[in-house]
Amino acid sequence: MRPLSIALAGLGTVGTGVLQVLRENADIIAARAGRPLAVTAVSARDRSRDRGVSLAGLRWYDDPVALASDPQVDVVVELIGGIGEPAKTLVEAALRMGKPVVTANKALLAVHGAALAELAEQSGAALAFEAAVAGGIPVIKALREGLAANRIHRVAGILNGTCNYILTVMGERGREFAEVLAEAQRLGYAEADPSLDIDGIDAAHKLAILAAIAFGRPVAFEAVHVEGIRNISALDIAYAGELGYRIKLLGIAREQEGGIEARVHPCMIPASSPLARVDGVFNAIVAEGNFVGPIILEGRGAGAGPTASAVVADLIDIARGRPVPVWGAASSALNHRPSVPMSAHVGAYYLRLMVVDRAGVIADVTAVLRDLNISLESMLQRGRSPGEAVPVVLVTHETNEAAMRTALARIAALDVVLEAPTLIRIEPA
Amino acid sequence: MRPLSIALAGLGTVGTGVLQVLRENADIIAARAGRPLAVTAVSARDRSRDRGVSLAGLRWYDDPVALASDPQVDVVVELIGGIGEPAKTLVEAALRMGKPVVTANKALLAVHGAALAELAEQSGAALAFEAAVAGGIPVIKALREGLAANRIHRVAGILNGTCNYILTVMGERGREFAEVLAEAQRLGYAEADPSLDIDGIDAAHKLAILAAIAFGRPVAFEAVHVEGIRNISALDIAYAGELGYRIKLLGIAREQEGGIEARVHPCMIPASSPLARVDGVFNAIVAEGNFVGPIILEGRGAGAGPTASAVVADLIDIARGRPVPVWGAASSALNHRPSVPMSAHVGAYYLRLMVVDRAGVIADVTAVLRDLNISLESMLQRGRSPGEAVPVVLVTHETNEAAMRTALARIAALDVVLEAPTLIRIEPA
Repeated sequence: MRPLSIALAGLGTVGTGVLQVLRENADIIAARAGRPLAVTAVSARDRSRDRGVSLAGLRWYDDPVALASDPQVDVVVELIGGIGEPAKTLVEAALRMGKPVVTANKALLAVHGAALAELAEQSGAALAFEAAVAGGIPVIKALREGLAANRIHRVAGILNGTCNYILTVMGERGREFAEVLAEAQRLGYAEADPSLDIDGIDAAHKLAILAAIAFGRPVAFEAVHVEGIRNISALDIAYAGELGYRIKLLGIAREQEGGIEARVHPCMIPASSPLARVDGVFNAIVAEGNFVGPIILEGRGAGAGPTASAVVADLIDIARGRPVPVWGAASSALNHRPSVPMSAHVGAYYLRLMVVDRAGVIADVTAVLRDLNISLESMLQRGRSPGEAVPVVLVTHETNEAAMRTALARIAALDVVLEAPTLIRIEPA
Repeated sequence: MRPLSIALAGLGTVGTGVLQVLRENADIIAARAGRPLAVTAVSARDRSRDRGVSLAGLRWYDDPVALASDPQVDVVVELIGGIGEPAKTLVEAALRMGKPVVTANKALLAVHGAALAELAEQSGAALAFEAAVAGGIPVIKALREGLAANRIHRVAGILNGTCNYILTVMGERGREFAEVLAEAQRLGYAEADPSLDIDGIDAAHKLAILAAIAFGRPVAFEAVHVEGIRNISALDIAYAGELGYRIKLLGIAREQEGGIEARVHPCMIPASSPLARVDGVFNAIVAEGNFVGPIILEGRGAGAGPTASAVVADLIDIARGRPVPVWGAASSALNHRPSVPMSAHVGAYYLRLMVVDRAGVIADVTAVLRDLNISLESMLQRGRSPGEAVPVVLVTHETNEAAMRTALARIAALDVVLEAPTLIRIEPA
């Protein structure tokens, strides 16, 4: 059978990885795809750069969008990234011509995914994006096909390896965020501009995609509540340990009364829960279905090899002709359950204050909570140094985010509270 | 679109579960499958039994094989079990008529899977069996499609929930095998005749299936080395803990020099490894690919809900028309790498002896190991009671199974060794 002819836009580490996977595993890939897979055309910014793989015999395009109209190209792989040009135009051009697209572009899917899915349906072309979420872990396939018989109630995961690496190192060595971030940047685990990762935006892109598939509704990135890990301190990680928790940046989407709640923020989770043990650059996802119960998937969430593995798995599916709707069901079959705002969130909270160590302080703070009907589960005040600043930790029972926000503002305004309080939500798992 | 018309053979807990999933989640299943899924015909042993679900409006067959020739049936679901009649005849009859088959029958696939795959290829009908391995965990899909870009070097897993439950309870409560098995039988976690589970045969069926997909070669159940958990004692579990290990019944298939090694036996694995933390009736699988690295999948490995979830996922794939070769590649594209016999296994070993506590015993035992070039990593002899029986634990460095077997026979023959020695293999993870 004629090889599937592939155009590759973007030759960074992932693009180069795709070339390497296709060459090194060519025999088994052909057996599994039913035909050989061959990259025949490429586009990147710098033609002369040495990438460690030969580009001999491949048609070169300076303009990636031109790949879509190359008549010898069957499938376009978009590894440029970003929600703007040229990635979006390339994907649209290929889909309009009825050519399947494989992309690792989580931002593009999260922001423009609903429109792109409709475009794909109109032309009958596949739009595949296993590599966009959790790198090599086949979580899109697991949710969209493997658990397709289930109503998913909740999906939660460690979706950003940079944040998980930083939190892991902070916890293991008792070090502060800024210091560990700088080290991660030196080691190449964090970007020079780390904001997309450490502010939770990358995880929110991925969560938006997972939530759309899990709940069968159009992708809604703007409805995801996002907080990053900049404010996590070594002190809070130590307190978490003392309370039997670990701090992780999680993306969580779940069915709530009134709709779907989707949020990315640091969480305290029980040290014995499966996600608590996932350390370093590993990613993991828990999905809970109404018949299957909880399913946990874990693996490398980034890097050339794992991401390329996911891109090539999508190419094999396309070669085999395995049609799957972009979001698991046709756009017309998606539901329109509303998004629930963060203010309606119900959960338990960890609150750490720096207060003046003197009589009556705890009474003042707990009076605020009482006035808002927030019930306390535990309080920790370690050590004494009268007149000095000491940390006080409060853990609440389940309460409402709006009430908690009001309490936080009132507590922050107390004279005896010396710094902005730290609030970390507690998740059951 | 016309509903996909399904015949269901076998109405035990899983068959009843399939009916419940299809009814309770009918709307989302139709959206994901692109058409409704409807069971229209059933067969079981006892028509009058109350199963808690209505069979009204379904065509009843006393002979399950007759389901295959019902002209209104599009797909046959085989949930009878066993490698003989009528399951095998039903599956063959359906495939011969070009009708897709979904089965949870691990034994049938492990023993007759190569021939059934050829039959399916000849007629162009799908043969799907996600439910045959690890219940609700979509491990067949993950290996066969999600990791299809990779050469898999190793696949290992906790594949039998009954064994894992027994080992977990033995470890948590320091109790002996027979006692915990009896309790598991009372609770319904173990069968009245528990041999298939506790002797490792069920896990070996599942491992044979996973190995065939992972390594792209015809399923070879007879080549799997099988040992169960009957000989595991509370004492060995306690020693494992002391040495930093947990004891699990694992199925392991890996590439070795000369071919593929496949084995099911109790293992000591590091307490910090992902599989060590999987307790109770949960199953988990680790697959290692040459680009993706390790991927870990965890979930409920049995029970009506999880197993039915997998059966219905296969039905949705069939409704969507997603052709996947039975073993991941066409029968003609499978390789024929040989199976490596257990005698060629290389690994570390835990050996526990009951010996007479007197001078020179350790010297006698270690002389046997030295003569066979088996290198010791550690030795434990706790407590002293001169002249009485005391346990001695030896942990070897990596050595060869054949040498270890010879050593074991020689050590067992020593006068000072009072019982048959216990040997447990040590796995890196």
